[in-house]
Amino acid sequence: MKVRIAGVQMAPEIAQKRANLDKCLDRLHEAAAAGARLVVFPECCLTGYCFSSREEARPMAETIPGPATEGAAEACRKLRVYAVLGLIERDGGRLYNAAVLLGPEGVIASYRKVHLPYLGVDRFLNKGNLPFAVHHTRAGNLGLNICYDASFPESARVMALAGADIIILPTNWPEGRQRVPNFVINTRAFENKVHYVAVDRVGRERGTGFIGRSKIVDAGGDTLAEAGPVNEEIIYADVDLTRARTKRTVVIPGQFEFDLLRDRRPDFYRPLTTPRLLR
Amino acid sequence: MKVRIAGVQMAPEIAQKRANLDKCLDRLHEAAAAGARLVVFPECCLTGYCFSSREEARPMAETIPGPATEGAAEACRKLRVYAVLGLIERDGGRLYNAAVLLGPEGVIASYRKVHLPYLGVDRFLNKGNLPFAVHHTRAGNLGLNICYDASFPESARVMALAGADIIILPTNWPEGRQRVPNFVINTRAFENKVHYVAVDRVGRERGTGFIGRSKIVDAGGDTLAEAGPVNEEIIYADVDLTRARTKRTVVIPGQFEFDLLRDRRPDFYRPLTTPRLLR
Repeated sequence: MKVRIAGVQMAPEIAQKRANLDKCLDRLHEAAAAGARLVVFPECCLTGYCFSSREEARPMAETIPGPATEGAAEACRKLRVYAVLGLIERDGGRLYNAAVLLGPEGVIASYRKVHLPYLGVDRFLNKGNLPFAVHHTRAGNLGLNICYDASFPESARVMALAGADIIILPTNWPEGRQRVPNFVINTRAFENKVHYVAVDRVGRERGTGFIGRSKIVDAGGDTLAEAGPVNEEIIYADVDLTRARTKRTVVIPGQFEFDLLRDRRPDFYRPLTTPRLLR
Repeated sequence: MKVRIAGVQMAPEIAQKRANLDKCLDRLHEAAAAGARLVVFPECCLTGYCFSSREEARPMAETIPGPATEGAAEACRKLRVYAVLGLIERDGGRLYNAAVLLGPEGVIASYRKVHLPYLGVDRFLNKGNLPFAVHHTRAGNLGLNICYDASFPESARVMALAGADIIILPTNWPEGRQRVPNFVINTRAFENKVHYVAVDRVGRERGTGFIGRSKIVDAGGDTLAEAGPVNEEIIYADVDLTRARTKRTVVIPGQFEFDLLRDRRPDFYRPLTTPRLLR
């Protein structure tokens, strides 16, 4: 089954949630009109990222479901599309860097960033407390990560093992993290044979510049679409879900075959400290 | 501490063990004369790879320690260098695709390839039965993988967690596996903050072409040296072991800091199948 994916690279304005949401809804309509069934936005696209304190970020946070996500879900219902939006989630006294999955059926799930760097608003947020999960939708089996999660191979691995077809990474890559779009994203797709959608922001916020380069990579590890480093733009690619469900690769029948999941050897994956010394 | 590493990209001749060993010893002398303290050779560099049956490969196999590895260890003793050589190891009735670590102290350890593709001699060999291990040497804490192991992020991860400074990958990348030198090797170094040395063969063997592109990547994920796709050559790079021992990165003090091992969240790395559904 083919699914058209859109990645909306944009520059949110810090603390301008209403304006950011309106911009996201405009782009959602544009991407849906171009045939996209899954539309991905950057990390913290509703709120901005470079807050100076937890107190400053708190008024931006909301519950999921909440006003912004229910408003966006209503648009998804009308447009018959799925969308992933980044925001700050409030749950009692706790605040999370979250990505919400919306669809024709409403607010489907929230993912709370598991790996937090000491950077921007992440310095002041709670660490994600929910397991990585795979969501079964009519646009495929979808797994969510956020930004720094991609630096940890385990984040995508557990979702590939749980049957993800597409891994979605809203991100805010700051200057200096070029290596992640240069080679890490392609590796995550390649090693798990999953499609991978990384959507970054652009622009500067309180002295921090962001590097854009949103990309959609297919389940072979090849880049299908990549945005530039500076401008707002929407990238599109069509992916075949069945490709991510066949982990077996036959290069030459009977001579060169492999299977990236079957060939795993989990008994050997526990940390070890005792080498086999011959002398 | 700085260590000069050499990667000897070469074209072994199938089933010509004596000639291959002599060539390796020549290159070992050349690399040692150029100041290398660690000299890495390709997978199966003593035997060749494209055997047609287990019976054909069996006479090439030997125990470790055995005649070839003891001869090469004697050269390492004289030259005061460490070396990693690929060969087929015999242990009772079992045959393994092995890499042996040699040094001034003799035959130090054998690693038996854990992940086997259905390709070349690997089709007929036993799967590695020994844990990944880190070997503490005067050229650093060394971990061994072979070829296809690099496609599984767990292979390097467990050794990084066990304190590896340098991960060594003798390989025989066939045509079609360009993505591994294109981006996977750099990712392994980057995500674990370890130096990584991948040494490939070149040339054709019974219809299979190999792609060269041996590379040495530093603990930041940047390529320090890379060989071409066709010719025999030796690549060199100097790496700083202390760099791999400091997983903490301070980009802007108090504003942007991270630690690739401390920031891991192993409780979330178990495979999961139950998503958090809001509706």
